[in-house]
This record gives sequence, C-alpha cells and structure tokens, in this order.
Amino acid sequence: MADSAAQATAPAYVYDVKMTCGGCSGAINRVLTKNVEAPNAFSVSLETQKVVVWGPSLPAFDDLTAKIAKTGKEIREKEEVKDNKRLAELVSV
Amino acid sequence: MADSAAQATAPAYVYDVKMTCGGCSGAINRVLTKNVEAPNAFSVSLETQKVVVWGPSLPAFDDLTAKIAKTGKEIREKEEVKDNKRLAELVSV
Repeated sequence: MADSAAQATAPAYVYDVKMTCGGCSGAINRVLTKNVEAPNAFSVSLETQKVVVWGPSLPAFDDLTAKIAKTGKEIREKEEVKDNKRLAELVSV
Repeated sequence: MADSAAQATAPAYVYDVKMTCGGCSGAINRVLTKNVEAPNAFSVSLETQKVVVWGPSLPAFDDLTAKIAKTGKEIREKEEVKDNKRLAELVSV
C-alpha cells in the first residue's frame, strides 16, 4: 500500500504536510493504511514533505483531508489533482 | 491549557505515547487543544513520553483515547487514574 516504488497517477490527492522525523511520517502512514484501501495507494515522503494518495476509488477529498488533519500535523497545502501533467508538476519538486 | 507548570490531580488519564520529536509531541498537543476544554487541562512530555489529561469534567476515557489514536501515534500504555497516589506513581517515573 505504501510502496513508494509505485507510480502515482491521476486522479490523486497531493498534500504538503509538516513532518519533522520518522515518527511524524510513520503516523501519517498508519492513518492512511487505515483509510485508503486497495486498489488505491499512497506514498509518504519525509524528504519532500509530500503525501500522495491515488487510485480509481478514492475516499472523498474532504473526508481524507479530515483524517489527515486529525493526526495533528500541519497541512501546508492540499490539492485534488485531475490530470497527470499537474501531478508531475507537484510531485517532481 | 498545556501549561506543564500546572499540577495534575486525579481523576486523570495517563498515556504513554511514542513521540520521537517536537513535531510528534506538537501533534498530540494540537489534538488535545481541540478536544480538552477548560477547566480541564493536559500536559505532553516528549522527555517522559507521558500525556496526562485531568480535570473535573473530562471527556469519556474511550473517546479521548480514540482521538489520540487518530494521530497515528502508538499508545504503549493507557490508564484511567482515580486517585492521586496512583497518579504520583505514574507521572513521577
């Protein structure tokens, strides 16, 4: 599920989340593991501060955003991404 | 609310939560700020890994425990404490 080797494709949700250690990113990982079911997938990167969730049957954007907010982590930016060009712009940074 | 100079008194809830950086303890702090109202109070210690919530009109133990669990942090131990002797044993470690 959190296999970062998997390639994210639109539609996707992209979040910039303030994470300062492996404990922070691990917490996001656990919450997403509970709330994102296969065949959907996600990746969490402490290095880029990006959380990406994608797949054909995603939970509603607002619902998933609320779940992430309940971790207590600051969401600096969030975007519902509809096409792969925009996704590439966001995740290649 | 998160004034650690305040003295915790029973009844209280004491949690041992795995926190590895200030971002971890900050996340717990934000969630408790939202869910614990005055005159109740709480303290979060990265050093001792202890989260203590106390006051005369606490939320239900299971409800507050669920809120903390939703941060994605591991709760190693949790206890609803009814008397000050037991509280002193737990928080003096």
